[in-house]
Amino acid sequence: MPRVSGKTDKDQLLALLGAAIRARRKVMDLSQEALADQAGIDRSHMGKIERGERNVTLLNVAKLAHALSCKPSDLLVDAGF
Amino acid sequence: MPRVSGKTDKDQLLALLGAAIRARRKVMDLSQEALADQAGIDRSHMGKIERGERNVTLLNVAKLAHALSCKPSDLLVDAGF
Repeated sequence: MPRVSGKTDKDQLLALLGAAIRARRKVMDLSQEALADQAGIDRSHMGKIERGERNVTLLNVAKLAHALSCKPSDLLVDAGF
Repeated sequence: MPRVSGKTDKDQLLALLGAAIRARRKVMDLSQEALADQAGIDRSHMGKIERGERNVTLLNVAKLAHALSCKPSDLLVDAGF
């Protein structure tokens, strides 16, 4: 697990998680709006999370995992960390 | 993975992660201050994270995982989610 320090590391981590969330959402054939609603997350925040523009909190990762019928750790494993 | 909604669910999730971080820290025989410094996290924030009083962000989980020589997903798996 590389050190998380520089801006690029951080951006990359968030982008990887966003992509992992998007991939699971598409497998479940959910729209971004439907996932946001089911997870109880604001729709515009949801878009930013998927684009890697938000430093997601643990509770939001847990809400998204629940809506995607997986465990929070599954999302991080999918993302490669 | 239960739905994350009520205050108790949230508190429990954060407490479980805090305990998982503390357990790994103790295995590595690190003080809370040393872990905070190595992870680049404010020492008082570190205490609150371990006590489950903070909704930890992904980047802080990644920094702590790096300092604890494990993957961020390992910390979530340790915590049971």
